[in-house]
Amino acid sequence: MLINGVPGDYVSIHDRGLLYGDGVFRTLRVSAGKILCWPRHFRKLQQDCAAIKLPCPEAALLSDELQQLVKQQPEGVAKIVITRGLGARGYAPAESAVPTRILSITPFTPYPDEFHTQGIRLRVCDLRLAHQPRLAGIKHLNRLENVLAASEWNDAGIAEGLMLDAAGNVIEGTRSNLFMLHGGELLTPDLSRCGVAGVQRERVIEWASAQGMPCRTGQFGLDELLAADEIFMVNSVIGLWPVRELQGHTWSQHPVARQIQEWLNHAPD
Amino acid sequence: MLINGVPGDYVSIHDRGLLYGDGVFRTLRVSAGKILCWPRHFRKLQQDCAAIKLPCPEAALLSDELQQLVKQQPEGVAKIVITRGLGARGYAPAESAVPTRILSITPFTPYPDEFHTQGIRLRVCDLRLAHQPRLAGIKHLNRLENVLAASEWNDAGIAEGLMLDAAGNVIEGTRSNLFMLHGGELLTPDLSRCGVAGVQRERVIEWASAQGMPCRTGQFGLDELLAADEIFMVNSVIGLWPVRELQGHTWSQHPVARQIQEWLNHAPD
Repeated sequence: MLINGVPGDYVSIHDRGLLYGDGVFRTLRVSAGKILCWPRHFRKLQQDCAAIKLPCPEAALLSDELQQLVKQQPEGVAKIVITRGLGARGYAPAESAVPTRILSITPFTPYPDEFHTQGIRLRVCDLRLAHQPRLAGIKHLNRLENVLAASEWNDAGIAEGLMLDAAGNVIEGTRSNLFMLHGGELLTPDLSRCGVAGVQRERVIEWASAQGMPCRTGQFGLDELLAADEIFMVNSVIGLWPVRELQGHTWSQHPVARQIQEWLNHAPD
Repeated sequence: MLINGVPGDYVSIHDRGLLYGDGVFRTLRVSAGKILCWPRHFRKLQQDCAAIKLPCPEAALLSDELQQLVKQQPEGVAKIVITRGLGARGYAPAESAVPTRILSITPFTPYPDEFHTQGIRLRVCDLRLAHQPRLAGIKHLNRLENVLAASEWNDAGIAEGLMLDAAGNVIEGTRSNLFMLHGGELLTPDLSRCGVAGVQRERVIEWASAQGMPCRTGQFGLDELLAADEIFMVNSVIGLWPVRELQGHTWSQHPVARQIQEWLNHAPD
Protein backbone atom coordinates (compact mmCIF):
# COMPACT_ATOMS: atom_id res chain seq x y z
CA MET A 1 0.00 0.00 0.00
CA LEU A 2 1.17 3.50 -0.76
CA ILE A 3 -0.52 6.60 0.66
CA ASN A 4 0.72 9.68 -1.20
CA GLY A 5 3.78 7.66 -2.18
CA VAL A 6 4.58 6.49 1.34
CA PRO A 7 4.07 2.89 2.51
CA GLY A 8 1.18 2.70 4.98
CA ASP A 9 -2.40 1.64 5.26
CA TYR A 10 -4.09 4.41 7.23
CA VAL A 11 -5.71 7.74 6.35
CA SER A 12 -6.70 10.64 8.56
CA ILE A 13 -10.22 10.70 9.97
CA HIS A 14 -10.34 14.25 8.55
CA ASP A 15 -9.96 12.94 5.01
CA ARG A 16 -12.95 14.00 2.91
CA GLY A 17 -12.98 10.59 1.26
CA LEU A 18 -14.10 9.15 4.59
CA LEU A 19 -16.25 12.09 5.72
CA TYR A 20 -18.27 12.61 2.52
CA GLY A 21 -17.19 9.98 0.00
CA ASP A 22 -15.55 12.95 -1.71
CA GLY A 23 -13.35 11.14 -4.20
CA VAL A 24 -13.14 8.65 -7.05
CA PHE A 25 -11.55 5.25 -7.56
CA ARG A 26 -10.51 2.61 -10.06
CA THR A 27 -10.07 -1.14 -9.80
CA LEU A 28 -7.50 -2.62 -12.17
CA ARG A 29 -6.38 -6.12 -13.01
CA VAL A 30 -2.64 -6.79 -12.70
CA SER A 31 -1.44 -9.83 -14.62
CA ALA A 32 2.10 -11.06 -15.23
CA GLY A 33 3.42 -7.82 -13.76
CA LYS A 34 1.38 -5.67 -16.15
CA ILE A 35 -1.43 -3.24 -15.27
CA LEU A 36 -4.08 -4.09 -17.84
CA CYS A 37 -5.64 -1.21 -19.80
CA TRP A 38 -3.68 1.37 -17.83
CA PRO A 39 -4.01 4.25 -20.36
CA ARG A 40 -7.79 3.82 -20.45
CA HIS A 41 -8.05 3.61 -16.68
CA PHE A 42 -5.99 6.74 -16.26
CA ARG A 43 -8.10 8.61 -18.82
CA LYS A 44 -11.29 7.63 -16.96
CA LEU A 45 -9.69 8.63 -13.66
CA GLN A 46 -8.90 12.04 -15.14
CA GLN A 47 -12.46 12.44 -16.45
CA ASP A 48 -13.98 11.37 -13.14
CA CYS A 49 -11.74 13.74 -11.18
CA ALA A 50 -12.64 16.58 -13.54
CA ALA A 51 -16.36 15.84 -13.13
CA ILE A 52 -16.16 16.57 -9.40
CA LYS A 53 -13.43 19.23 -9.79
CA LEU A 54 -10.77 17.19 -8.07
CA PRO A 55 -7.15 17.72 -9.20
CA CYS A 56 -5.98 14.41 -10.74
CA PRO A 57 -2.41 13.26 -9.98
CA GLU A 58 -0.08 12.95 -12.99
CA ALA A 59 -0.15 9.69 -14.96
CA ALA A 60 3.62 9.19 -14.54
CA LEU A 61 3.42 9.56 -10.77
CA LEU A 62 0.56 7.05 -10.42
CA SER A 63 2.15 4.67 -12.88
CA ASP A 64 5.53 4.77 -11.06
CA GLU A 65 3.88 4.13 -7.72
CA LEU A 66 1.76 1.29 -9.12
CA GLN A 67 4.90 -0.28 -10.56
CA GLN A 68 6.46 -0.34 -7.09
CA LEU A 69 3.49 -2.35 -5.86
CA VAL A 70 3.33 -4.58 -8.93
CA LYS A 71 6.95 -5.63 -8.32
CA GLN A 72 5.88 -7.11 -5.00
CA GLN A 73 2.64 -8.60 -6.35
CA PRO A 74 2.69 -9.29 -10.10
CA GLU A 75 -0.75 -10.99 -10.04
CA GLY A 76 -3.65 -9.26 -8.37
CA VAL A 77 -6.18 -6.48 -8.28
CA ALA A 78 -4.91 -2.94 -7.92
CA LYS A 79 -7.02 -0.15 -6.56
CA ILE A 80 -6.48 3.59 -6.92
CA VAL A 81 -8.49 5.90 -4.65
CA ILE A 82 -8.17 9.67 -5.07
CA THR A 83 -9.89 11.76 -2.40
CA ARG A 84 -10.11 15.53 -1.94
CA GLY A 85 -7.74 15.15 1.02
CA LEU A 86 -7.95 16.74 4.44
CA GLY A 87 -10.76 19.15 5.08
CA ALA A 88 -11.94 21.39 7.87
CA ARG A 89 -15.56 20.87 8.93
CA GLY A 90 -18.07 21.72 6.21
CA TYR A 91 -19.05 20.43 2.78
CA ALA A 92 -17.45 23.19 0.70
CA PRO A 93 -14.02 22.04 -0.51
CA ALA A 94 -11.09 24.35 0.25
CA GLU A 95 -9.46 25.88 -2.82
CA SER A 96 -6.14 24.66 -1.48
CA ALA A 97 -7.24 21.04 -0.98
CA VAL A 98 -4.42 18.57 -1.68
CA PRO A 99 -5.78 15.23 -2.90
CA THR A 100 -4.92 12.01 -1.09
CA ARG A 101 -3.89 9.12 -3.34
CA ILE A 102 -4.23 5.59 -2.03
CA LEU A 103 -2.75 2.74 -4.06
CA SER A 104 -3.02 -0.90 -3.12
CA ILE A 105 -2.79 -4.36 -4.62
CA THR A 106 -4.56 -7.39 -3.21
CA PRO A 107 -4.27 -10.99 -4.44
CA PHE A 108 -6.69 -12.00 -7.15
CA THR A 109 -9.19 -14.63 -5.99
CA PRO A 110 -10.27 -16.40 -9.18
CA TYR A 111 -14.00 -16.83 -9.74
CA PRO A 112 -15.40 -20.28 -10.58
CA ASP A 113 -14.39 -21.23 -14.14
CA GLU A 114 -18.00 -21.93 -15.04
CA PHE A 115 -18.86 -18.23 -14.65
CA HIS A 116 -16.76 -17.64 -17.75
CA THR A 117 -17.55 -20.83 -19.60
CA GLN A 118 -21.19 -21.68 -18.82
CA GLY A 119 -22.27 -18.18 -17.80
CA ILE A 120 -23.74 -16.83 -14.58
CA ARG A 121 -27.08 -16.66 -12.86
CA LEU A 122 -28.20 -13.03 -12.52
CA ARG A 123 -30.89 -11.71 -10.17
CA VAL A 124 -32.91 -8.49 -10.25
CA CYS A 125 -32.17 -6.27 -7.24
CA ASP A 126 -35.00 -4.52 -5.39
CA LEU A 127 -32.95 -1.35 -5.03
CA ARG A 128 -33.61 1.15 -7.82
CA LEU A 129 -30.84 3.54 -8.85
CA ALA A 130 -31.62 7.24 -8.43
CA HIS A 131 -31.22 9.66 -11.35
CA GLN A 132 -28.40 12.07 -10.62
CA PRO A 133 -26.99 13.34 -13.94
CA ARG A 134 -24.22 15.26 -12.14
CA LEU A 135 -22.73 12.03 -10.77
CA ALA A 136 -23.83 9.53 -13.42
CA GLY A 137 -21.09 7.55 -15.11
CA ILE A 138 -18.51 8.51 -12.47
CA LYS A 139 -16.82 5.86 -10.33
CA HIS A 140 -17.03 7.99 -7.17
CA LEU A 141 -16.88 6.93 -3.54
CA ASN A 142 -20.64 7.37 -2.85
CA ARG A 143 -21.51 3.72 -3.30
CA LEU A 144 -24.27 3.03 -0.78
CA GLU A 145 -26.68 2.08 -3.57
CA ASN A 146 -24.28 -0.65 -4.66
CA VAL A 147 -23.78 -1.77 -1.05
CA LEU A 148 -27.53 -2.04 -0.43
CA ALA A 149 -28.09 -3.86 -3.74
CA ALA A 150 -25.21 -6.29 -3.13
CA SER A 151 -26.49 -7.10 0.35
CA GLU A 152 -29.86 -8.28 -0.99
CA TRP A 153 -28.79 -11.88 -1.62
CA ASN A 154 -26.48 -14.40 -0.08
CA ASP A 155 -26.38 -17.27 -2.55
CA ALA A 156 -22.90 -17.92 -3.98
CA GLY A 157 -24.60 -19.50 -7.00
CA ILE A 158 -25.88 -16.07 -8.05
CA ALA A 159 -22.84 -14.22 -9.31
CA GLU A 160 -24.27 -10.76 -9.88
CA GLY A 161 -27.29 -8.56 -9.27
CA LEU A 162 -28.97 -6.45 -11.93
CA MET A 163 -29.89 -2.89 -10.98
CA LEU A 164 -32.75 -0.98 -12.62
CA ASP A 165 -33.41 2.73 -12.27
CA ALA A 166 -36.49 4.28 -10.71
CA ALA A 167 -38.11 4.43 -14.17
CA GLY A 168 -37.71 0.67 -14.66
CA ASN A 169 -34.84 0.78 -17.15
CA VAL A 170 -32.13 -1.85 -16.78
CA ILE A 171 -28.85 -0.09 -15.98
CA GLU A 172 -25.97 -2.30 -14.82
CA GLY A 173 -24.78 -4.99 -12.43
CA THR A 174 -23.79 -4.08 -8.86
CA ARG A 175 -20.15 -4.16 -10.04
CA SER A 176 -20.32 -4.62 -13.81
CA ASN A 177 -21.72 -3.15 -17.02
CA LEU A 178 -24.48 -4.81 -19.00
CA PHE A 179 -24.80 -5.68 -22.68
CA MET A 180 -27.42 -7.53 -24.66
CA LEU A 181 -27.59 -8.79 -28.20
CA HIS A 182 -30.87 -8.29 -30.07
CA GLY A 183 -31.17 -9.49 -33.66
CA GLY A 184 -27.52 -8.81 -34.46
CA GLU A 185 -27.47 -5.45 -32.68
CA LEU A 186 -25.47 -4.87 -29.50
CA LEU A 187 -27.34 -2.80 -26.90
CA THR A 188 -26.09 -1.26 -23.67
CA PRO A 189 -27.93 1.03 -21.22
CA ASP A 190 -27.49 4.77 -21.39
CA LEU A 191 -25.57 5.87 -18.27
CA SER A 192 -26.21 9.62 -18.41
CA ARG A 193 -28.59 9.60 -15.41
CA CYS A 194 -27.14 6.82 -13.21
CA GLY A 195 -24.65 3.97 -13.29
CA VAL A 196 -20.88 3.74 -13.71
CA ALA A 197 -19.38 3.81 -17.21
CA GLY A 198 -16.54 1.30 -17.02
CA VAL A 199 -13.44 0.82 -19.12
CA GLN A 200 -14.47 -2.62 -20.40
CA ARG A 201 -17.84 -1.21 -21.52
CA GLU A 202 -15.92 1.34 -23.58
CA ARG A 203 -13.76 -1.42 -25.08
CA VAL A 204 -16.79 -3.51 -26.06
CA ILE A 205 -18.38 -0.50 -27.77
CA GLU A 206 -15.15 0.08 -29.68
CA TRP A 207 -14.95 -3.60 -30.61
CA ALA A 208 -18.42 -3.44 -32.12
CA SER A 209 -17.49 -0.34 -34.08
CA ALA A 210 -14.33 -1.99 -35.41
CA GLN A 211 -16.35 -5.09 -36.41
CA GLY A 212 -19.02 -3.04 -38.12
CA MET A 213 -21.56 -4.49 -35.67
CA PRO A 214 -24.35 -2.02 -34.85
CA CYS A 215 -24.13 -0.94 -31.21
CA ARG A 216 -26.69 1.31 -29.58
CA THR A 217 -26.84 3.03 -26.20
CA GLY A 218 -30.37 3.65 -24.96
CA GLN A 219 -33.12 3.02 -22.44
CA PHE A 220 -34.15 -0.62 -22.20
CA GLY A 221 -36.70 -2.28 -19.94
CA LEU A 222 -36.46 -5.67 -18.26
CA ASP A 223 -38.80 -7.15 -20.89
CA GLU A 224 -36.39 -6.19 -23.65
CA LEU A 225 -33.51 -7.68 -21.70
CA LEU A 226 -35.36 -10.96 -21.14
CA ALA A 227 -36.12 -11.14 -24.88
CA ALA A 228 -32.44 -10.73 -25.82
CA ASP A 229 -30.51 -13.38 -27.79
CA GLU A 230 -27.53 -13.02 -25.47
CA ILE A 231 -26.77 -11.10 -22.29
CA PHE A 232 -23.36 -10.47 -20.75
CA MET A 233 -21.69 -8.46 -18.00
CA VAL A 234 -18.19 -6.95 -18.12
CA ASN A 235 -15.72 -5.36 -15.74
CA SER A 236 -11.96 -5.05 -15.41
CA VAL A 237 -11.56 -7.83 -12.86
CA ILE A 238 -13.98 -10.46 -14.16
CA GLY A 239 -13.53 -9.74 -17.86
CA LEU A 240 -16.77 -10.99 -19.43
CA TRP A 241 -19.43 -13.23 -17.92
CA PRO A 242 -22.23 -14.47 -20.18
CA VAL A 243 -25.61 -14.64 -18.42
CA ARG A 244 -27.20 -18.10 -18.48
CA GLU A 245 -30.19 -17.45 -16.21
CA LEU A 246 -32.33 -14.47 -15.24
CA GLN A 247 -35.85 -14.64 -13.77
CA GLY A 248 -36.48 -18.18 -15.01
CA HIS A 249 -35.27 -17.39 -18.55
CA THR A 250 -32.20 -19.30 -19.69
CA TRP A 251 -29.56 -18.83 -22.37
CA SER A 252 -27.32 -21.75 -23.31
CA GLN A 253 -25.51 -20.33 -26.34
CA HIS A 254 -23.46 -17.12 -26.31
CA PRO A 255 -21.58 -17.04 -29.62
CA VAL A 256 -21.07 -13.26 -29.77
CA ALA A 257 -20.29 -12.94 -26.05
CA ARG A 258 -17.63 -15.68 -26.50
CA GLN A 259 -16.02 -13.76 -29.34
CA ILE A 260 -15.92 -10.56 -27.30
CA GLN A 261 -14.68 -12.41 -24.21
CA GLU A 262 -11.78 -13.82 -26.20
CA TRP A 263 -10.98 -10.41 -27.65
CA LEU A 264 -11.16 -8.59 -24.27
CA ASN A 265 -8.78 -11.14 -22.75
CA HIS A 266 -6.22 -11.15 -25.52
CA ALA A 267 -6.41 -7.90 -27.47
CA PRO A 268 -4.03 -5.06 -26.74
CA ASP A 269 -5.36 -2.43 -24.32
CA MET B 1 -10.29 11.85 18.90
CA LEU B 2 -11.26 8.31 19.78
CA ILE B 3 -11.33 5.47 17.24
CA ASN B 4 -13.16 2.48 18.72
CA GLY B 5 -12.40 3.93 22.13
CA VAL B 6 -8.67 4.37 21.53
CA PRO B 7 -7.07 7.80 21.07
CA GLY B 8 -5.95 8.26 17.47
CA ASP B 9 -6.89 10.03 14.28
CA TYR B 10 -6.39 7.46 11.56
CA VAL B 11 -8.53 4.71 10.04
CA SER B 12 -7.57 1.80 7.80
CA ILE B 13 -7.72 2.32 4.04
CA HIS B 14 -9.81 -0.87 4.04
CA ASP B 15 -12.54 0.80 6.08
CA ARG B 16 -15.81 0.71 4.16
CA GLY B 17 -16.55 4.24 5.32
CA LEU B 18 -13.72 5.41 3.08
CA LEU B 19 -14.20 2.87 0.28
CA TYR B 20 -17.95 3.26 -0.21
CA GLY B 21 -19.22 5.92 2.18
CA ASP B 22 -20.74 2.92 3.96
CA GLY B 23 -21.71 4.55 7.24
CA VAL B 24 -23.63 7.31 9.00
CA PHE B 25 -22.73 10.32 11.11
CA ARG B 26 -23.98 12.99 13.47
CA THR B 27 -22.76 16.48 14.27
CA LEU B 28 -23.55 17.69 17.79
CA ARG B 29 -23.11 20.94 19.65
CA VAL B 30 -21.20 20.73 22.93
CA SER B 31 -21.78 23.67 25.24
CA ALA B 32 -20.66 24.19 28.84
CA GLY B 33 -19.56 20.56 28.94
CA LYS B 34 -22.93 19.25 27.83
CA ILE B 35 -23.79 17.40 24.62
CA LEU B 36 -26.95 19.14 23.46
CA CYS B 37 -29.93 16.97 22.52
CA TRP B 38 -27.96 13.78 23.08
CA PRO B 39 -30.97 11.42 23.46
CA ARG B 40 -32.45 12.67 20.19
CA HIS B 41 -29.14 12.40 18.37
CA PHE B 42 -28.61 8.87 19.60
CA ARG B 43 -32.15 7.89 18.54
CA LYS B 44 -31.53 9.28 15.03
CA LEU B 45 -28.17 7.49 14.91
CA GLN B 46 -29.91 4.23 15.78
CA GLN B 47 -32.58 4.80 13.11
CA ASP B 48 -29.99 5.70 10.48
CA CYS B 49 -27.86 2.66 11.31
CA ALA B 50 -30.94 0.42 11.11
CA ALA B 51 -31.88 1.90 7.73
CA ILE B 52 -28.63 0.63 6.21
CA LYS B 53 -28.48 -2.49 8.44
CA LEU B 54 -25.44 -1.32 10.37
CA PRO B 55 -25.15 -2.46 14.02
CA CYS B 56 -25.34 0.69 16.18
CA PRO B 57 -23.01 0.93 19.19
CA GLU B 58 -24.71 1.15 22.60
CA ALA B 59 -25.80 4.57 23.85
CA ALA B 60 -23.82 4.18 27.10
CA LEU B 61 -20.61 3.35 25.23
CA LEU B 62 -20.90 6.34 22.90
CA SER B 63 -21.94 8.64 25.71
CA ASP B 64 -19.01 7.57 27.92
CA GLU B 65 -16.54 8.08 25.12
CA LEU B 66 -18.02 11.47 24.20
CA GLN B 67 -17.72 12.51 27.85
CA GLN B 68 -14.00 11.74 27.77
CA LEU B 69 -13.63 14.16 24.85
CA VAL B 70 -15.95 16.77 26.35
CA LYS B 71 -13.76 16.93 29.47
CA GLN B 72 -10.91 18.13 27.28
CA GLN B 73 -13.05 20.43 25.17
CA PRO B 74 -16.23 21.63 26.92
CA GLU B 75 -17.17 24.02 24.07
CA GLY B 76 -17.19 22.72 20.54
CA VAL B 77 -18.72 20.60 17.83
CA ALA B 78 -18.67 16.84 18.31
CA LYS B 79 -18.88 14.40 15.47
CA ILE B 80 -19.79 10.73 15.58
CA VAL B 81 -19.06 8.62 12.51
CA ILE B 82 -20.12 4.96 12.44
CA THR B 83 -18.87 2.94 9.48
CA ARG B 84 -19.36 -0.71 8.57
CA GLY B 85 -15.70 -1.28 9.47
CA LEU B 86 -13.07 -3.24 7.59
CA GLY B 87 -14.11 -5.05 4.48
CA ALA B 88 -12.60 -7.35 1.92
CA ARG B 89 -12.95 -6.21 -1.69
CA GLY B 90 -16.58 -6.12 -2.88
CA TYR B 91 -19.74 -4.17 -2.11
CA ALA B 92 -21.56 -6.89 -0.16
CA PRO B 93 -21.03 -6.36 3.57
CA ALA B 94 -19.69 -9.33 5.53
CA GLU B 95 -22.13 -10.72 8.11
CA SER B 96 -19.32 -10.46 10.65
CA ALA B 97 -18.55 -6.79 9.95
CA VAL B 98 -17.53 -4.92 13.11
CA PRO B 99 -18.44 -1.22 12.88
CA THR B 100 -15.80 1.45 13.32
CA ARG B 101 -16.78 4.34 15.60
CA ILE B 102 -14.97 7.63 15.23
CA LEU B 103 -15.58 10.34 17.80
CA SER B 104 -14.07 13.79 17.67
CA ILE B 105 -14.58 17.29 18.99
CA THR B 106 -13.35 20.40 17.24
CA PRO B 107 -13.56 23.99 18.53
CA PHE B 108 -16.73 25.87 17.65
CA THR B 109 -16.10 28.79 15.30
CA PRO B 110 -18.99 31.18 15.95
CA TYR B 111 -20.88 32.49 12.93
CA PRO B 112 -21.44 36.24 12.52
CA ASP B 113 -24.01 37.43 15.09
CA GLU B 114 -26.09 39.02 12.36
CA PHE B 115 -26.89 35.58 10.89
CA HIS B 116 -28.96 34.98 14.02
CA THR B 117 -30.22 38.50 14.55
CA GLN B 118 -30.77 39.99 11.07
CA GLY B 119 -31.04 36.71 9.19
CA ILE B 120 -29.03 35.27 6.31
CA ARG B 121 -28.85 35.59 2.57
CA LEU B 122 -29.78 32.29 0.93
CA ARG B 123 -29.04 31.26 -2.66
CA VAL B 124 -30.60 28.61 -4.88
CA CYS B 125 -28.10 25.88 -5.83
CA ASP B 126 -27.93 24.55 -9.38
CA LEU B 127 -27.49 20.99 -8.16
CA ARG B 128 -30.77 19.09 -7.90
CA LEU B 129 -31.13 16.33 -5.31
CA ALA B 130 -31.85 12.86 -6.70
CA HIS B 131 -34.82 10.85 -5.44
CA GLN B 132 -33.58 7.80 -3.56
CA PRO B 133 -36.26 6.72 -1.06
CA ARG B 134 -33.99 4.02 0.39
CA LEU B 135 -31.47 6.63 1.57
CA ALA B 136 -33.74 9.65 2.07
CA GLY B 137 -33.73 11.21 5.52
CA ILE B 138 -30.56 9.35 6.56
CA LYS B 139 -27.40 11.25 7.50
CA HIS B 140 -25.13 8.81 5.68
CA LEU B 141 -21.59 9.30 4.38
CA ASN B 142 -22.56 9.59 0.69
CA ARG B 143 -22.52 13.38 0.61
CA LEU B 144 -21.20 14.27 -2.84
CA GLU B 145 -24.44 16.11 -3.67
CA ASN B 146 -23.88 18.39 -0.67
CA VAL B 147 -20.22 18.85 -1.61
CA LEU B 148 -21.09 19.84 -5.19
CA ALA B 149 -23.87 22.17 -4.02
CA ALA B 150 -21.67 23.82 -1.37
CA SER B 151 -18.90 24.39 -3.90
CA GLU B 152 -21.17 26.45 -6.16
CA TRP B 153 -20.55 29.79 -4.42
CA ASN B 154 -17.69 31.51 -2.68
CA ASP B 155 -19.25 34.61 -1.14
CA ALA B 156 -19.01 34.66 2.66
CA GLY B 157 -22.04 36.97 2.66
CA ILE B 158 -24.23 34.10 1.50
CA ALA B 159 -24.55 31.82 4.49
CA GLU B 160 -26.36 28.88 2.97
CA GLY B 161 -27.48 27.31 -0.29
CA LEU B 162 -30.99 26.00 -0.93
CA MET B 163 -31.27 22.65 -2.66
CA LEU B 164 -34.26 21.64 -4.78
CA ASP B 165 -35.01 18.14 -6.03
CA ALA B 166 -35.17 17.09 -9.67
CA ALA B 167 -38.94 17.79 -9.66
CA GLY B 168 -38.39 21.40 -8.55
CA ASN B 169 -39.52 21.01 -4.94
CA VAL B 170 -37.54 22.93 -2.32
CA ILE B 171 -35.93 20.39 0.03
CA GLU B 172 -33.28 21.75 2.41
CA GLY B 173 -30.09 23.76 2.80
CA THR B 174 -26.71 22.17 2.04
CA ARG B 175 -26.31 21.61 5.81
CA SER B 176 -29.64 22.62 7.34
CA ASN B 177 -33.37 21.96 7.26
CA LEU B 178 -35.87 24.43 5.86
CA PHE B 179 -39.10 25.84 7.28
CA MET B 180 -41.49 28.49 6.03
CA LEU B 181 -44.46 30.23 7.59
CA HIS B 182 -47.52 30.72 5.40
CA GLY B 183 -50.59 32.44 6.83
CA GLY B 184 -50.01 31.11 10.32
CA GLU B 185 -49.14 27.60 9.15
CA LEU B 186 -45.65 26.16 9.48
CA LEU B 187 -44.50 24.20 6.41
CA THR B 188 -41.45 22.00 5.93
CA PRO B 189 -40.48 19.84 2.95
CA ASP B 190 -41.27 16.15 2.88
CA LEU B 191 -37.97 14.24 3.09
CA SER B 192 -39.14 10.78 2.07
CA ARG B 193 -37.41 10.90 -1.32
CA CYS B 194 -34.28 12.95 -0.60
CA GLY B 195 -32.74 15.18 2.05
CA VAL B 196 -31.58 14.65 5.63
CA ALA B 197 -34.13 14.75 8.46
CA GLY B 198 -32.28 16.52 11.27
CA VAL B 199 -32.83 16.60 15.00
CA GLN B 200 -33.66 20.34 15.10
CA ARG B 201 -36.30 19.87 12.38
CA GLU B 202 -37.91 17.26 14.63
CA ARG B 203 -37.80 19.68 17.57
CA VAL B 204 -39.43 22.49 15.58
CA ILE B 205 -42.22 20.16 14.46
CA GLU B 206 -42.79 19.18 18.10
CA TRP B 207 -42.73 22.82 19.18
CA ALA B 208 -45.51 23.62 16.70
CA SER B 209 -47.54 20.69 17.93
CA ALA B 210 -47.12 21.79 21.58
CA GLN B 211 -48.15 25.35 20.62
CA GLY B 212 -51.16 24.20 18.66
CA MET B 213 -49.67 25.80 15.57
CA PRO B 214 -50.59 23.93 12.38
CA CYS B 215 -47.48 22.32 10.87
CA ARG B 216 -47.52 20.47 7.58
CA THR B 217 -44.92 18.37 5.75
CA GLY B 218 -45.35 18.36 1.99
CA GLN B 219 -44.04 19.23 -1.46
CA PHE B 220 -43.46 22.93 -1.98
CA GLY B 221 -42.09 24.77 -4.98
CA LEU B 222 -39.76 27.75 -5.02
CA ASP B 223 -42.69 30.07 -5.78
CA GLU B 224 -44.43 28.99 -2.58
CA LEU B 225 -41.23 29.54 -0.63
CA LEU B 226 -40.76 33.03 -2.07
CA ALA B 227 -44.35 33.90 -1.12
CA ALA B 228 -43.81 32.84 2.52
CA ASP B 229 -44.26 35.24 5.44
CA GLU B 230 -41.09 33.92 7.06
CA ILE B 231 -38.35 31.47 6.12
CA PHE B 232 -35.78 29.91 8.40
CA MET B 233 -33.10 27.22 8.44
CA VAL B 234 -32.15 25.01 11.40
CA ASN B 235 -29.40 22.60 12.36
CA SER B 236 -27.68 21.45 15.54
CA VAL B 237 -24.65 23.68 15.17
CA ILE B 238 -26.19 26.94 13.94
CA GLY B 239 -29.47 26.67 15.83
CA LEU B 240 -31.90 28.80 13.80
CA TRP B 241 -31.11 31.31 11.08
CA PRO B 242 -33.97 33.44 9.72
CA VAL B 243 -33.68 34.10 5.98
CA ARG B 244 -33.62 37.79 5.07
CA GLU B 245 -32.92 37.51 1.33
CA LEU B 246 -33.53 34.96 -1.40
CA GLN B 247 -33.56 35.69 -5.15
CA GLY B 248 -34.16 39.41 -4.69
CA HIS B 249 -37.01 38.88 -2.20
CA THR B 250 -36.42 40.20 1.29
CA TRP B 251 -37.87 39.55 4.71
CA SER B 252 -37.19 42.02 7.52
CA GLN B 253 -39.48 40.66 10.23
CA HIS B 254 -39.34 37.12 11.63
CA PRO B 255 -41.58 37.09 14.69
CA VAL B 256 -42.32 33.35 14.70
CA ALA B 257 -38.77 32.36 13.76
CA ARG B 258 -37.54 34.48 16.71
CA GLN B 259 -39.84 32.69 19.10
CA ILE B 260 -38.67 29.27 17.86
CA GLN B 261 -35.02 30.36 17.89
CA GLU B 262 -35.35 31.38 21.53
CA TRP B 263 -37.06 28.12 22.39
CA LEU B 264 -34.51 25.94 20.55
CA ASN B 265 -31.66 27.66 22.37
CA HIS B 266 -33.11 27.51 25.85
CA ALA B 267 -35.65 24.69 26.06
CA PRO B 268 -34.68 21.33 27.48
CA ASP B 269 -33.63 18.75 24.86
